[in-house]
Amino acid sequence: MNYSIIFYIISYVLKIEGFFLIAPAMVGVIYKEQEYLSFLICALIYILVGVLTTLKRPKNQVFYAKEGLVSVALSWFVLSIFGSVPFVLNGDIPNFVDAFFETVSGFTTTGSSILGDVEALSHCSLFWRSFSHWIGGMGVLVFILSVLPLTGGSTIHLMRAESPGPQVGKVMPKIRDTATILYLIYTVMTLVQIVILCVGKMPLFDAVTLTFGSAGTGGFAIKNSGLAEYNPFCQYVIAIFMLLFGVNFNVYFLAYKRHFKQALSVEEMRWYFVIVGASVLFITYNIRSMFPTLEEAFRQSLFQVSSIITTTGFSTTDFNLWPLFSKCIIVGLMFCGACAGSTGGGIKVSRIAVLIKSVKDELQVIIHPKAVRHVRFENKAIDGATLRSIFMFLGAYVLVFSGSLLLLCLDKYDFTTNFTAVAATINNIGPGFSEVGPVKNFGDYTQLSKLLLSFNMLAGRLEIFPVLVLINPKTWRSSALIRFKHKSNI
Amino acid sequence: MNYSIIFYIISYVLKIEGFFLIAPAMVGVIYKEQEYLSFLICALIYILVGVLTTLKRPKNQVFYAKEGLVSVALSWFVLSIFGSVPFVLNGDIPNFVDAFFETVSGFTTTGSSILGDVEALSHCSLFWRSFSHWIGGMGVLVFILSVLPLTGGSTIHLMRAESPGPQVGKVMPKIRDTATILYLIYTVMTLVQIVILCVGKMPLFDAVTLTFGSAGTGGFAIKNSGLAEYNPFCQYVIAIFMLLFGVNFNVYFLAYKRHFKQALSVEEMRWYFVIVGASVLFITYNIRSMFPTLEEAFRQSLFQVSSIITTTGFSTTDFNLWPLFSKCIIVGLMFCGACAGSTGGGIKVSRIAVLIKSVKDELQVIIHPKAVRHVRFENKAIDGATLRSIFMFLGAYVLVFSGSLLLLCLDKYDFTTNFTAVAATINNIGPGFSEVGPVKNFGDYTQLSKLLLSFNMLAGRLEIFPVLVLINPKTWRSSALIRFKHKSNI
Repeated sequence: MNYSIIFYIISYVLKIEGFFLIAPAMVGVIYKEQEYLSFLICALIYILVGVLTTLKRPKNQVFYAKEGLVSVALSWFVLSIFGSVPFVLNGDIPNFVDAFFETVSGFTTTGSSILGDVEALSHCSLFWRSFSHWIGGMGVLVFILSVLPLTGGSTIHLMRAESPGPQVGKVMPKIRDTATILYLIYTVMTLVQIVILCVGKMPLFDAVTLTFGSAGTGGFAIKNSGLAEYNPFCQYVIAIFMLLFGVNFNVYFLAYKRHFKQALSVEEMRWYFVIVGASVLFITYNIRSMFPTLEEAFRQSLFQVSSIITTTGFSTTDFNLWPLFSKCIIVGLMFCGACAGSTGGGIKVSRIAVLIKSVKDELQVIIHPKAVRHVRFENKAIDGATLRSIFMFLGAYVLVFSGSLLLLCLDKYDFTTNFTAVAATINNIGPGFSEVGPVKNFGDYTQLSKLLLSFNMLAGRLEIFPVLVLINPKTWRSSALIRFKHKSNI
Repeated sequence: MNYSIIFYIISYVLKIEGFFLIAPAMVGVIYKEQEYLSFLICALIYILVGVLTTLKRPKNQVFYAKEGLVSVALSWFVLSIFGSVPFVLNGDIPNFVDAFFETVSGFTTTGSSILGDVEALSHCSLFWRSFSHWIGGMGVLVFILSVLPLTGGSTIHLMRAESPGPQVGKVMPKIRDTATILYLIYTVMTLVQIVILCVGKMPLFDAVTLTFGSAGTGGFAIKNSGLAEYNPFCQYVIAIFMLLFGVNFNVYFLAYKRHFKQALSVEEMRWYFVIVGASVLFITYNIRSMFPTLEEAFRQSLFQVSSIITTTGFSTTDFNLWPLFSKCIIVGLMFCGACAGSTGGGIKVSRIAVLIKSVKDELQVIIHPKAVRHVRFENKAIDGATLRSIFMFLGAYVLVFSGSLLLLCLDKYDFTTNFTAVAATINNIGPGFSEVGPVKNFGDYTQLSKLLLSFNMLAGRLEIFPVLVLINPKTWRSSALIRFKHKSNI
């Protein structure tokens, strides 16, 4: 294990976080809130420590998959731990575990909250919460890749490990250029949404924070009523932008490169919009009698479907009160999640699509054993290794899910609450049903349960394996020993 | 498609069912119940029709996987439909859909009931309900294989399609001999259990019916209170025999062949007993304060764990009232199920074990990309094809499960009820939680929901694919056309 490079990367992450923390400090200054001080102090300390520890680049810059996975998982832990300190210092979230939960929820773009009264928070704390969504949505390591002066090939291990963030289908020869273009697209889309929301008469602070929440598919609201109070125009705008941020960024990358035909033929995007369309229609029909106009039923349906499938978690209504059929669709969308290579979480549309196609293919082969297997996705044949990695992900996902659910059941809540709490955190959504529904929060879980759910959020955001690698004792054993054991096993 | 052979097999199934129906008719005669008549009439008609239609053996006896799957799936439908007629005729279950649900539940060894008052049934109907468990547990087609005069090689397709019934690991050169030995073991174990229960002062009728229920891992009780009224000795005996019938029959086959060392080293059995042991301990500790003595807590825990992991579904207490942690373990066991090659349902211990081992292996390979993959189970390396078929099963399972749950949510119940109702039927268990808990029943679901749940029971018993093949339109298309389409796709 190359400890020096891991330490270097984590120090770099701390430094970057320090710079990010200047933004909420400035917001605090603008709103003349004394809470700004905690952000400023943390920012200065993190920058100072970060600069000092990254002064000397490590000599040995070569690192492998293991180092990549460990760096990524540790970076996210470090980001969350140090990101929660200002909340504790300024008293907005005095309990450290609560602050940690809230910050993990922010960076992992989950949006589950332990706060009963969000409106009691200072503007700078609200801004930091939402800003963490925006930072987390894109992936912290990809950002670092675009600024970090590391030598060539090894960076791919970092980028791969932080997989769910926006990335292009094929490994580009110039990763740094690609990352820069992706950030550019991300930033421009964010700015466009802020401008449109302001045109729709939303206050600037709300427009900025909610845009951060939808761009990163996070879901922290800044009002206790969620997004119910905003006008229909703004609700439509946010619903549409959530959907757009849930699209595979490959599409935008191709469009940026002027390959419009290719961009439109991305198969995952088509599956994604078909699922969204069908869900919106079914739910609109199912809830039509609950709202005065069909338009409102449609808007509520569209907003909630967009919010859940993209794993954002904003809400304009308490969908916990919807009929069970609609709730069941919502639960299904929770697991489905957005496109791979978007800012969203969940299992991802592409995996679901390949799963469905494989089962259809298997059925075909069972009926006609001599038929040729041909599972194709995005115009490419799915080979055994790809299928294996998808199934391994699903296997690990199910195991982590089941284990978490079992442990969470030691807490006081009912099955539906716990089941959807695990689903909402591991899929990085935010609200669940029942006691963790849109108008409730995670505050009443015990400290241990909150840590467990924080773990789930990180596991979900990093697609399980990096976190498993981090907590696996074998990772930390001497590799020579393991290699020896391997040989004796053969 | 070789229709004549399929028709021949189904006719044979009808004939066999006719002979089976003589048993409940005799029980009715013994108890001087007029309900016996419906069983006798059906028996005679089925035998007559069956004999007439199987007089001439079809010339073309060669059939392939497709015919095997279709025959098996259709046979189970036919068994259930014709098996439910006596209930309707004698008025014990006047509604046909209810009777069909109950009979499917019987043959698939599920044990979910629509009856609120079981004790109101005649003895002959109670006997038939339980007897269907015993028949279904072993698999109807395997039974037919041991008596049916079909030519050699084609029978393997039948045996494979009806997979979850007892079968030995490797395909024996003489399938018929193997099947006969398995039936012998099954029958002897059944008789032993009946004798021991009688020694334990259980009335003969109760001993016979409950033994049928535990041998087939079915779970129909004959008292409204389930098995709560029987003495602790009988409860222990049933708990232990349920566990024994959940063991891979390969173990008994090896023991029969005097390969005791091999029998004890069957890996799946060891996983199975470890899971049972751990679950019993955790639940005993969790529910210890609910019962007067630790022995009773242990007994209730052991009984319910045995009942659920073997997918039997008997209950000696209302586990719906247990703490959520215990309930969550129970839900986990519902999905786990018993060993492959036992009479139990569920996903099966071997699949879970291979899944866990594969994920561990994947983690290892991620940490050390050069490490050699080596997933071994039962002392054999798991190859890609085996892994693929396991994952395809899990994929199809998840899709059928999700689809059923969504449709069931159109009915009136809550999420927990519907979720566990689907789990209880697709895993062939019986009771779920909440409104379908051990002291409640499935009677209040709509007719459509009952048909959906019946479909789930059949899908679960036949391990999904045969039923999917049956309802897949492509199965019924001309194979020449499909072959043409395949070639044009390559």
